[in-house]
Amino acid sequence: MQNKYEHIQQEAYEANMQLPKLGLVLFTFGNVSAADRDLGVFAIKPSGIPYEELTPAKMVIVDFDANTVKGSLRPSSDTKTHAVLYKHWDRINGIAHTHSIYATAWAQSLRDIPIYGTTHADHITCDVPCAPPMNDEMIKGNYEYETGFQIMNALKEKGLRYEEVEMILVGNHAPFTWGKTAAKAVYNSAVLENIAQMAYLTESIKADSLRLKEALIKKHYERKHGPDSYYGQQ
Amino acid sequence: MQNKYEHIQQEAYEANMQLPKLGLVLFTFGNVSAADRDLGVFAIKPSGIPYEELTPAKMVIVDFDANTVKGSLRPSSDTKTHAVLYKHWDRINGIAHTHSIYATAWAQSLRDIPIYGTTHADHITCDVPCAPPMNDEMIKGNYEYETGFQIMNALKEKGLRYEEVEMILVGNHAPFTWGKTAAKAVYNSAVLENIAQMAYLTESIKADSLRLKEALIKKHYERKHGPDSYYGQQ
Amino acid sequence: MQNKYEHIQQEAYEANMQLPKLGLVLFTFGNVSAADRDLGVFAIKPSGIPYEELTPAKMVIVDFDANTVKGSLRPSSDTKTHAVLYKHWDRINGIAHTHSIYATAWAQSLRDIPIYGTTHADHITCDVPCAPPMNDEMIKGNYEYETGFQIMNALKEKGLRYEEVEMILVGNHAPFTWGKTAAKAVYNSAVLENIAQMAYLTESIKADSLRLKEALIKKHYERKHGPDSYYGQQ
Amino acid sequence: MQNKYEHIQQEAYEANMQLPKLGLVLFTFGNVSAADRDLGVFAIKPSGIPYEELTPAKMVIVDFDANTVKGSLRPSSDTKTHAVLYKHWDRINGIAHTHSIYATAWAQSLRDIPIYGTTHADHITCDVPCAPPMNDEMIKGNYEYETGFQIMNALKEKGLRYEEVEMILVGNHAPFTWGKTAAKAVYNSAVLENIAQMAYLTESIKADSLRLKEALIKKHYERKHGPDSYYGQQ
Repeated sequence: MQNKYEHIQQEAYEANMQLPKLGLVLFTFGNVSAADRDLGVFAIKPSGIPYEELTPAKMVIVDFDANTVKGSLRPSSDTKTHAVLYKHWDRINGIAHTHSIYATAWAQSLRDIPIYGTTHADHITCDVPCAPPMNDEMIKGNYEYETGFQIMNALKEKGLRYEEVEMILVGNHAPFTWGKTAAKAVYNSAVLENIAQMAYLTESIKADSLRLKEALIKKHYERKHGPDSYYGQQ
Repeated sequence: MQNKYEHIQQEAYEANMQLPKLGLVLFTFGNVSAADRDLGVFAIKPSGIPYEELTPAKMVIVDFDANTVKGSLRPSSDTKTHAVLYKHWDRINGIAHTHSIYATAWAQSLRDIPIYGTTHADHITCDVPCAPPMNDEMIKGNYEYETGFQIMNALKEKGLRYEEVEMILVGNHAPFTWGKTAAKAVYNSAVLENIAQMAYLTESIKADSLRLKEALIKKHYERKHGPDSYYGQQ
Repeated sequence: MQNKYEHIQQEAYEANMQLPKLGLVLFTFGNVSAADRDLGVFAIKPSGIPYEELTPAKMVIVDFDANTVKGSLRPSSDTKTHAVLYKHWDRINGIAHTHSIYATAWAQSLRDIPIYGTTHADHITCDVPCAPPMNDEMIKGNYEYETGFQIMNALKEKGLRYEEVEMILVGNHAPFTWGKTAAKAVYNSAVLENIAQMAYLTESIKADSLRLKEALIKKHYERKHGPDSYYGQQ
Repeated sequence: MQNKYEHIQQEAYEANMQLPKLGLVLFTFGNVSAADRDLGVFAIKPSGIPYEELTPAKMVIVDFDANTVKGSLRPSSDTKTHAVLYKHWDRINGIAHTHSIYATAWAQSLRDIPIYGTTHADHITCDVPCAPPMNDEMIKGNYEYETGFQIMNALKEKGLRYEEVEMILVGNHAPFTWGKTAAKAVYNSAVLENIAQMAYLTESIKADSLRLKEALIKKHYERKHGPDSYYGQQ
């Protein structure tokens, strides 16, 4: 019998398996999902299963209201956050969440990561935003659901578009990243960890570090992502 | 002839072998034990034997008064600490001791590790306690035995329960962790090292870092360990 | 049919593959080239191709005016910087560019790396220079081409010779290194990252660290590179 | 024909090969020697040869006045330092020199490494000494030979015995360690790097860190090295 979700289960599986390879997770502290817009669902890592025991078939299929559609395992405890973001941001098909060391330390510090260099500007043109912690009512309420709104509101308040800024820190918690595919979301998680470590060291080396100037930010972003970009093939 | 200790020797062996894999030890600087409550004994790593030479059969069997019951090798020099904890804390069956870099640095700083984020709150709801160094009489006396009491007293004074707080720093020395199994004790050692590194970076990034607020601490702990937990399978 | 560029394609390929092995790059954030002075061209990594997909044949052949001579893939987006340096510095046959963590953090701090020890003096006798960021006109203009001039001018202003100082930081960006061969350029990138990490730690350990004194700088450099050097074989 | 130096060549080879495995060297930045007191010689790594090309037969045989006795390759550029130490300290048979990151950063900071914890006290009972940089005359003279005296004098001035304190930092340069065997010297290099990293983090976590108290120093050292030691087997 045909399994019509096989392609996103495979995609989610492969993307999840990249997390330990890239050094972004300890034990099971991370999860990636892959969505199919036509089917209106996403495949996500089951909760608390060690990476070495994962298989594509174990990826749980969930709809954008966080209802499990297929799968006998319980989906990631962060599933509602994924669902909310997919529901409201219709151009993304992948989301990743890790507790990677440096990005999490910035999240715990409740600070945006300042844009200090071109490694950062190659990917986004603003500081990496840090969403403020929720108020106590939201925490006691539908916590993971509210986390999704906390992320969306933080972008909105800073005037940022999710199509361009594919990463955020959730204050006191850890980073979330997204993209056109699950693989791109994981790529963004690795880039964010890289940027977070460099920014930490930059401030340690020079206490009063200056943010990158606008011309350089624009140049580096445009050469990778602008209409006349010349990075990569095509 | 049957060896009735084989199961805990195997368990202790496997748990000890996880320490170098998780990057928690240099050379032989660590030890894990696994207890059987019915037999009233635990299996522990022999002292000073390199990990690559360990076998399950080399694990030494010791009773809760620290007497060797079976085994030709000398047990870990920290054996008495393990014995004291098993004797007084009847719900644990595994103990791990490492000199992992970041947790040891906090122990050397004589500071509790402040709870700065949800990675921490996913595991315990308080700062990781640091037991004060012993007085000189205790050090010159039955040192490893007293280390066990130092650990128990530090928890007691802070009003913490060993069933919930499965990790501690021994001031000037290094961390001890425990749990229902030897594998869980090792898991806690890795989590503690992770938390210790993140807290160090958090303070480096923001000098006046704030502890996590209560609502968030409670939420994260409960979703993993509370009566209505929804992390993991079942 | 003969491919007269095969030797530099092979050399560039092997040098590029060293970058991930030495821990100097994340994803595709780096590039190495190898020049043949007689043919007046260099082989360089194609843009945005993952290291695991590289082959010698995929290395793009470019002349010293940055025109592609052979190859169907687009060359590295930093190709013009390589071309400018080869054109003006006729004694180098290899150039490497990475975003290695510590060297990049110093570049983001806009600071020269002070010479604090003999590991540094074994390779160069001055602080590692940091070229200032370009002015906005240059950034908006022929950016990668100007980067080459920025590097050359920074050396010139500090009175340094490229034959002796084979490494530089480009302010806000990241390091470039070079040498007689592509392999030597990569070697210099690894040495620079090593020096950068040690200098960072030196300042962290002692706030008012002192630069190495002249006699020691000279001694260490001379024993490796002077007329009476006695390091290495012959 | 018999090679009477084969045993120390083998020992030196194996000890040298441990350096990259333990993460203590970049490229060829380190060397280990193994001495035979009856033959009055030591085997040492040849200068500038990559670790992957080393063989036992390539180890150069040198006497205690630094004359090459056997071998076609040039011995390590630090050979005279080894020779001086073997000549004056007749109870050691192994010496190791690395530029390991954290120990070298302390050496560059010209600071002794304070004794902050029991990991340190398990090995030595004092701060790790840092020999002051040489005066300019000594540097310009027989540099590596003088380095040996610099090491010996630094111990003497602090009232330390080389049989107990098997490690030192040479100011502005890097660490040297020694021991009864080449393997022990390498072990000490790894322990020193571990101690150096922990002390760095300890000071970062708590600015006014206190040295370990005497009773604890003595206890930990004695349980490993005292007449009634109970660490390890026998």
